[in-house]
Amino acid sequence: MAEQANVREQLDGLYGLTDELVRSVHDALEAGRVEEAARLAASLHAADLADLVEQLPQNERDLLLDGIKEVDADVFAHLDEHVREDVIDHMDAERVAEVVAELDSDDAVELIEDLEADEQREVLDAVPAEDRALLEDSLRYPEDSAGRVMRRELATVPSYWDVGQTIDHMRSGAELPDEFYVIFVVGPDHRPLGTVQLSRLLRAERPVQVTDIMDQDMRLLPATMDQEEVAFLFRQYGLVSAPVVDDTGRLIGAIDLDDVVDVIDEEAEEDILKLAGLREDDFYDAVFDTTRARFSWLLVNLGTAIVASIVIGFFDAAIEKVVALAILMPIVASMGGNAGTQTLTVAVRALAMKELTPANAMRIVGKEVLVGGINGVLFAAVMGTVAWFWFGDMVIGAVIGAAMIVNLVLAGFAGVVIPLALERMDIDPAVGSTVVLTTLTDVIGFFSFLGLAAWVLL
Amino acid sequence: MAEQANVREQLDGLYGLTDELVRSVHDALEAGRVEEAARLAASLHAADLADLVEQLPQNERDLLLDGIKEVDADVFAHLDEHVREDVIDHMDAERVAEVVAELDSDDAVELIEDLEADEQREVLDAVPAEDRALLEDSLRYPEDSAGRVMRRELATVPSYWDVGQTIDHMRSGAELPDEFYVIFVVGPDHRPLGTVQLSRLLRAERPVQVTDIMDQDMRLLPATMDQEEVAFLFRQYGLVSAPVVDDTGRLIGAIDLDDVVDVIDEEAEEDILKLAGLREDDFYDAVFDTTRARFSWLLVNLGTAIVASIVIGFFDAAIEKVVALAILMPIVASMGGNAGTQTLTVAVRALAMKELTPANAMRIVGKEVLVGGINGVLFAAVMGTVAWFWFGDMVIGAVIGAAMIVNLVLAGFAGVVIPLALERMDIDPAVGSTVVLTTLTDVIGFFSFLGLAAWVLL
Repeated sequence: MAEQANVREQLDGLYGLTDELVRSVHDALEAGRVEEAARLAASLHAADLADLVEQLPQNERDLLLDGIKEVDADVFAHLDEHVREDVIDHMDAERVAEVVAELDSDDAVELIEDLEADEQREVLDAVPAEDRALLEDSLRYPEDSAGRVMRRELATVPSYWDVGQTIDHMRSGAELPDEFYVIFVVGPDHRPLGTVQLSRLLRAERPVQVTDIMDQDMRLLPATMDQEEVAFLFRQYGLVSAPVVDDTGRLIGAIDLDDVVDVIDEEAEEDILKLAGLREDDFYDAVFDTTRARFSWLLVNLGTAIVASIVIGFFDAAIEKVVALAILMPIVASMGGNAGTQTLTVAVRALAMKELTPANAMRIVGKEVLVGGINGVLFAAVMGTVAWFWFGDMVIGAVIGAAMIVNLVLAGFAGVVIPLALERMDIDPAVGSTVVLTTLTDVIGFFSFLGLAAWVLL
Repeated sequence: MAEQANVREQLDGLYGLTDELVRSVHDALEAGRVEEAARLAASLHAADLADLVEQLPQNERDLLLDGIKEVDADVFAHLDEHVREDVIDHMDAERVAEVVAELDSDDAVELIEDLEADEQREVLDAVPAEDRALLEDSLRYPEDSAGRVMRRELATVPSYWDVGQTIDHMRSGAELPDEFYVIFVVGPDHRPLGTVQLSRLLRAERPVQVTDIMDQDMRLLPATMDQEEVAFLFRQYGLVSAPVVDDTGRLIGAIDLDDVVDVIDEEAEEDILKLAGLREDDFYDAVFDTTRARFSWLLVNLGTAIVASIVIGFFDAAIEKVVALAILMPIVASMGGNAGTQTLTVAVRALAMKELTPANAMRIVGKEVLVGGINGVLFAAVMGTVAWFWFGDMVIGAVIGAAMIVNLVLAGFAGVVIPLALERMDIDPAVGSTVVLTTLTDVIGFFSFLGLAAWVLL
């Protein structure tokens, strides 16, 4: 995200939406000049128009979309899901069904799955029968599974064809996806036998059998597989398009790399947000929803803060006698929390990327404890000296130094062990780790510093 | 990352590397049975073998790689860069040059750019002359630019060709990339005029001109463009392959979606790590490097913690009289820090995704202040009551409640304004935001609570 200003300049002309355009459209809508706003927005790429809609205040969104004569269905596919829900709420079921029918099957499923059950029924009833069957079939698979992400339109050829037949078939105007990168070779039972890269097909002579140029080293994705695992396999094996099979092994769809990019974005975003105690991106949420979502996490945090305060309460006599302890104690807790968060973030990320495994866990724990220990000794020296001169008391310096070492070693240890333990218990390590860690570093930070001080000074 | 256990089962057979295999290889290497280890690892996919190498202790990595007769060059492309540096350090320049010559140009650049200047020279000298020129050319572009990420091997056709000529050319065994998804149509000056999707080419009749089926709505990527912007354009416009041009507009390379996936992963990872105060993923770093990298951030944090402690020091008289203040004060600071981090994370992410812009900044600030205010009032009620009963003093309850409202409103405001301001100053908001924010919420948290208490209670 560095040097955004330069980067904005680089994008001039490449990224269709400018701040100026957003402002002009907003001003026009505010002044009731809907036609002018629609004209300004009409030439935008569907993805840019979606961005524009997202940046407008809620009431202006519908105005603009109603004002544009023919809104490309793809605009709805590009919209953030919260904004989309909002916009769709103001549309009648027939119009939504039109949009759904126009979209590719994977985008259509994404749009429909977010609707309330009764709206979903209404929209599905208004969709042409053949589309409806496919959509209902996809919706039967669990949320965030390969079955939901896949597209149903496929380019397949039987295994006894040659390159010439394949090309002739493509040219015959057969029903095919708009864009595709591989052709799936299927057996008589519609099980996938291999994939043919289009670039490979193009280079082969017409009489060559498709089975001779197909790649048999495919990864068959079960329709119930979690999308995160799908993303992992695409990344790991550099896949561009992979076949999705039902539980009998028959080919029912395909996932392309561009759909996986959305999944990767989603998953990375989830990890970032979860580490900060957020369930999902609430950027476009209304105030009430945002407040409620954040409240629950803050409530958990209040509980842990009270626990830390109870620990401080054990040492009220020491604090009354030596007020310097109250002044210094947040430093120990804060350093532990920060050091622990560093370790934790690396560990959570490494777990997600399957880099941290049972095979190397012990080695990583050892490394982090050592790193914590070395930094602990260094910061003990720095902070011990500062405290000594600040309060003119060498003992206070020694106490804070010792507590610093204890807390940073613990932070390194806990930063790896907590996410590992949560994962072992089938709890998402990105969600729970931060709060468990900071509770621990706060409690141990206050306890080691105040306890040691009470023992030495009183 | 939820339900990792189930998910591991799902991956059985699809992901080639198992914990058992890692252990067996490790045990064999430890016992000196290098041949057995090499045999176990030999059948792995290059990406899986790279993962295996990463999970082994340092000394066993070289043993294994030396033990395997012919290590696929792609293994080095898949290795984490820290591990790769380590492994390459133990190889002679000729062997590295062999690997480089075997790799695709983009992977080769990625490998070479990490080498020290003198090693880089040595390896380049050992590479065949034609490859060397291309590599040196790519290395001239700035790090993390389109020029570094692009591949040089291209499928291009002149604009006066038809579909038949194009297909015949492909079949003639012309020098082409191994895999490609589009063909670039170029004018006589080698400027790109359009792209032809292979799936479109296949469906067209032989006499059709390539210019009739080409897509002119391309995004030309300048070779100096930052890779993050490249990723943005791919995502925004659903690109699969885009042409890279030099400053005269001539086609010099192409970037494919699968290279962009690596960039997206990198950038998402950077954001996660930066928010926790880490410059880069140090999972595979040695203890010394990790310690040093984390030290600098912790030092900054120590500085801000001392500032917060100085604020507490202003109120030592109040704390001496009412020790409950020392017990309760971390709660106000902690709640502010957590609420602020929630807002900050959403804002940093929205900036990166170009969702938070000057056009909607004011609206978002207003929303976050309101969210902070509502949660502030709610937690003021909760914590005020708790404090009242804990210390049997309604005034203390009122004071902590008031301070809670002040700090949560501030946290909402600062959580958006800090990243926006840093970005305006051309400072990466992901790096600096957290430390500025927590300093602010600590200082204001302690100041509002202790200041109010001193004023009311003394």
